[in-house]
This record gives sequence, structure tokens and C-alpha cells, in this order.
Amino acid sequence: MNYVLNNIPVRTEKPRASGLTMVMDKGLSIREVEDFISANSDFVDIVKLGWATSYLTKNLAQKINLYQDAGIPVYLGGTLFEAFVIRDQFDDYRKVVQEFNLSFVEVSDGSITLSHEKKCDYIKLLSKEVTVLSEVGSKDAAKIIPPYKWIEQMQKELDAGSWKVIGEAREGGNVGLFRDSGEVRQGLVEEILTKIPEEKIIWEAPQKEQQVWFVKLLGANVNLGNIAPNELIPLETIRLGLRGDTFDHFLGDLKL
Amino acid sequence: MNYVLNNIPVRTEKPRASGLTMVMDKGLSIREVEDFISANSDFVDIVKLGWATSYLTKNLAQKINLYQDAGIPVYLGGTLFEAFVIRDQFDDYRKVVQEFNLSFVEVSDGSITLSHEKKCDYIKLLSKEVTVLSEVGSKDAAKIIPPYKWIEQMQKELDAGSWKVIGEAREGGNVGLFRDSGEVRQGLVEEILTKIPEEKIIWEAPQKEQQVWFVKLLGANVNLGNIAPNELIPLETIRLGLRGDTFDHFLGDLKL
Amino acid sequence: MNYVLNNIPVRTEKPRASGLTMVMDKGLSIREVEDFISANSDFVDIVKLGWATSYLTKNLAQKINLYQDAGIPVYLGGTLFEAFVIRDQFDDYRKVVQEFNLSFVEVSDGSITLSHEKKCDYIKLLSKEVTVLSEVGSKDAAKIIPPYKWIEQMQKELDAGSWKVIGEAREGGNVGLFRDSGEVRQGLVEEILTKIPEEKIIWEAPQKEQQVWFVKLLGANVNLGNIAPNELIPLETIRLGLRGDTFDHFLGDLKL
Repeated sequence: MNYVLNNIPVRTEKPRASGLTMVMDKGLSIREVEDFISANSDFVDIVKLGWATSYLTKNLAQKINLYQDAGIPVYLGGTLFEAFVIRDQFDDYRKVVQEFNLSFVEVSDGSITLSHEKKCDYIKLLSKEVTVLSEVGSKDAAKIIPPYKWIEQMQKELDAGSWKVIGEAREGGNVGLFRDSGEVRQGLVEEILTKIPEEKIIWEAPQKEQQVWFVKLLGANVNLGNIAPNELIPLETIRLGLRGDTFDHFLGDLKL
Repeated sequence: MNYVLNNIPVRTEKPRASGLTMVMDKGLSIREVEDFISANSDFVDIVKLGWATSYLTKNLAQKINLYQDAGIPVYLGGTLFEAFVIRDQFDDYRKVVQEFNLSFVEVSDGSITLSHEKKCDYIKLLSKEVTVLSEVGSKDAAKIIPPYKWIEQMQKELDAGSWKVIGEAREGGNVGLFRDSGEVRQGLVEEILTKIPEEKIIWEAPQKEQQVWFVKLLGANVNLGNIAPNELIPLETIRLGLRGDTFDHFLGDLKL
Repeated sequence: MNYVLNNIPVRTEKPRASGLTMVMDKGLSIREVEDFISANSDFVDIVKLGWATSYLTKNLAQKINLYQDAGIPVYLGGTLFEAFVIRDQFDDYRKVVQEFNLSFVEVSDGSITLSHEKKCDYIKLLSKEVTVLSEVGSKDAAKIIPPYKWIEQMQKELDAGSWKVIGEAREGGNVGLFRDSGEVRQGLVEEILTKIPEEKIIWEAPQKEQQVWFVKLLGANVNLGNIAPNELIPLETIRLGLRGDTFDHFLGDLKL
């Protein structure tokens, strides 16, 4: 920090088990990755190469190495896992993970129809080799999953070996955890939290209001994902009560 | 491509006659252009220096050379053509095109009132010297042009020498082909396609939903324009059925 | 300018007393700052390090020096001033301003409740040491301040020593001067202008429609703030009547 401010909430430190920020890279150039790391490496815990953008990324190995050398694990978006699975190329997927030395994977079924048993089998299998994040929730706005199903699936995926489960929101923040308008499905989130420990969940929350909502509910050290690279310092100020939105939240009885 | 995925639609290759992507640069710095090219040169066919931003761009010749040396033709936005024409400085405009070694121009009347005959005269004249793109549709949301007029103007402009015609949407994607809300004027597009060959049209489609709509209607190799530089890899994944939106579209009978 | 266009409105030149553009940097890396300066230094008069982002910025001194060496003064967002004040650390705030050689500060009360007398005391005190910008308007959308209060506060702050007063809009452009929807509170702005000289006001106007509205009302040389770094050349074209929105505005009787 560049100066001392009192009464700032204490953030967990890297490597973090909670208070994680997951950033979505959807096609940064090599030099943009360098820039991103130079300004933000303390605030990012893990980078997702969004959906299947890695298929097209130039100098992919170099990009992944840059992140990993800066202490930031990288994984390939769940849609890519699904793209391999639907093509009956799961073994090829595992080879890609190996070839690029990835220690994390995401298992999801946002765009394909997969029995939950089969999904958990993938989690079991992959969790023997790498750290698994698994995602719950559909990318299809029309598929509303009731809260008890979210909870059941999250619990089973954690039991199957997922390190953490991710609540779906997409890049836009308008499905899954959120309504079309971006508004949080508050009842859903609260019901999930009655059963699943909060440190086991990463909430995708690309929009600022969504981030504010989660920080107000769960504090500075809530796990948040799908953050745009240029929104990382703004998010960190929201976590610390240093942006208008959460300014009052951590001040307690402090008054002029 | 960084790995092999089966059942991916075949994309045309550069130099493309169809399946074009036109990107709008609205003020990138020299180093940002280098970054953009390093990550995206395979996916971009032509760059437009948006409206009259070229008037203010530092190191304009260097920027244009960077793009051209990477095999990416550059042209100046149609609004600049109009800015010269309304000031009775058309000859000065031609000198600018020559001075910067541009092989493409855009002829449009989105902000000025120009008889269609006169517009076609400009197209005829310029098409003897350079490749002409001409744009149909007003930037004024209040000026609704009926479908038969779009068709008539597009046909006459192609007859006058335009290489392709561009359907207007602006940087925001909220006029011309689209409603205020960004929604596609579906009937308009379908009616145009009954008369004008699709490979002769570049659809301005800056918003993701608009891009998805056109890819679903016309396939991976639809011509799209006004794409933001950092949305190029995302667009390419949409074209290839590798983002949630179009994931199912190219899979045919593939099922788990 | 890269070529000559007639009938372009005359812009003031740096250092500008009016026609100012204030840009918000919310976490650019060092190299991004270099890029920004290389493309835009003529068009930016002052940079705000948004709210308390400076707390977390790596290489903060280097960043500030880069801007200042390019002739662009830097100040720390008003929320940071408030964060120090609410913690009873005002003296620490002054030390930060000194340590980083800042010649500008912002005094605001967008997130704290401060008597207006006390706010003016801060302005008086700080204006003996540095140039003060003070901001009027709440960040809380629910706190509607009537026009006569805006005027009264602006006048008292100018009397207390503010160089200029800033009309609040936040990063999003959806409070203070604007409605939730981003629409300008037209009556408010017009009433303010009956009493406060326009060159004494910087209007925060992050959205394009807002910028267009102010340029149409007050001309090319209106003072505008909270401009995103990559929207600076677009804004300059709006000021000059070289984007569709203001194309007609400066043409007078010019007709084809």
C-alpha cells in the first residue's frame, strides 16, 4: 500500500484459500499480459482463459508461462472442456491440459446436457491429476435451476473432488446467479449459503453492482470471479471500503 | 490453432472475399496497434480508423504502415469523407487518401444529405482509383429507410463500383440495421438478403448479441464490421461455435 | 492535425483555463500510461487517479512522474480525501499530497456527511498550498440536492478558494448531474449556469450522450471530466463536430 489508512479490512494474502479473485482473460496479447501482471499481480489469484479463446490465442504457451511465473495459476474455461466432451475428445482435452502444464481445470455443463453423475465422474477422474473447479448453473437464461438443486449439485461436486464450486454468471453477468437485468437472485444465494460453506464457492460477478452486493453480504474476503482485467484494482477498492459503494460498510461507528 | 477440435466450421482464409471481419480503431496508440496485430492479425481483414479520429491521431502514417505491413488494409471512416464533402473539399480528401497510401475508401451519407445520384458519382469516380466500400443507412435514429430503399441503394452502389456495401449501425449498434435497444431489424435484413448477395454486404454489428444473430443466420463466414479490437477473438469463437451462444449451432447431430 | 479541414471550431490550447478535459485513470499500468500519453497528451489537461485507487497502484510515484513530465497534472480522487477525513487522518492526507509532489487536490463530500462550513474550511486551508478542485453533488442516488443548493455551495466553494468546482456524476454517469438512466438533469444544469460562470465548472460526463449534450449546450470548449482514457480522441472529435452526433452543430449555413 502506498500510504497508511486506518480501519481497513484485513485481506487474506496469496496464496489465498478465501478472498480469491478470478480474472477472465478473453484474448490479451503477450504485452497486455505483462502490463496486467505488473499492475495487478497481488490482487489476482487465478486466471481463466475465457471459454474456448485459448484455441485461437497466439503464443499460448508463452502466455500461460508468463502468468505462472508470476505465481498466478491458469485454467481453460469450462466451455472448452464441454467442447471436447461433446466431440467425444475427452482424452485430447487431458493431453492439452498436460501439454500446457496446467494444474487447474474447470468442469462444467453450461452448454451441454450431461447427467450429474457423469459430471461427477469427470470431477473424480480429473481431481486425481489436477485441482478441479466445477461450475454450477446454465448459460441458458431459460433454464432456471431451483435452489435445492444448486445445493445438491454443489455438494456432490465438492464430494467428488472439486476444490471449489463456481456459481455461473457468464462474461456478461446476466444468467445463472443473476436475472437478465444483472440483478442478483438474492434468495438463491442466501439459500445456498445455508448449506455450502462460503469459502467453497466462487461467485461469478462481472458487474460492479454484483461485486458490491457480494462484498456487503460476505465481506472483503468473498471469492469472486469473471472479473475483467482492467477492473481488478476497482474491485480491490470495493473489497476494502475505498470506493463510494462500500465506503460506509467497514467504518463501524466511525463518524465525523 | 493450438489443438485439434473436430467438427469446427471451415473459415475462409486471408485474403478473404467473404467471412470478413472489419475492426474499428478509434484511437489506439502505436504500441496498442502492435499488440493488437500480434494477437489478432489472422482474424482481421480490414481496419477502419473510426469516423474522423484520423484527424487527431498522432503518428498517423506510422500507424497505417503498421497495419499495412501486417497485411491489413486501412481506410478512413465514412464520416470523414462526409466532413470533406460538406466543406466542398473533396479534392483535399483524395489527396489525403493518396498521401497515406490508402487503397480503400468509404463513401457514406450517414450525417449529410446527398442525392443518391451524387453519392453514386463519388463511388464511380473513386472506384477508378481505389477499392470502394459504401455505406447505406442513416446515423439518425429518426430516419427510418424502408427495406426497398435499402435494396435499391445497395444495388445502385454496387453497380456504380462499390466492392461491398456496409449496413450502418454506428459504433454503438443502435441505429440503421438495429433498433434503439440494439435489437436487429430482422425483417429488414431478411428482405435485403432476397435481393443482394450476402457476400457483397458487411453488416456492422458491434454488440455481441448482434454478432451471434448474424452468425446463426448466415454462418461462420458472414461479413461483420465495427468490431472493437478487444472483441476480435471472442467474435472468432462465436463464428466457430466455441462460445456458449453458438455452441450448438454447428454441432449438427452430435449428442452425448 | 493530420490534414486541413475548414470550419472547425477553435479549441483553446494547453495550459487551458477553459475547454479542459479531465481523464480518470482507475488503475492503468506504467506502460499503459506511456501509451496513453503518446497518443493523447494534447487532449488531456488533468488526470484524476480515480477515488482511492492510488492506495493500491504499483509504482505510484513513477506513474505520477510520467504524467507530470508530459505536462499533465495529477490529483487523487475526492473519495480518498474523504477516506482520510472520516478516519481523522487529514494531516496524513496532506503528507501524501506533499510526498508525491501533487499540485492539485480534490475536496469532496460525496460519501461522507460534512457540514458545508467545514468543507469550505478544508478548501481555504488547502488552497494556500495547492490548487483545489471541489466537487458538489452526492454519490448517493437517493440524495437529491435542489438547484439553489448546488448554486449556493458552488459559489461558497469558489469564494473559499476552489479553482474550479466539479459537478458529480461518478465513474458511471448515473448520479448527481444525471438521472439513474444517465439522462442529464437539464433544468439543474441550466439553473446553475444562470449564476455560476461556465468556465468555473467541470462537468463529469463519462457517457457519450452526456458529452454530446454538453458540447451542444456550451460549445467545443466546455470543461468535461471523468473521461475514460480510451475515449479521449472520440471526445475530441465530438468537440470539433467530427463525429455524427455533433456533425451539424458547427457547420452554420454550410450546405451541399
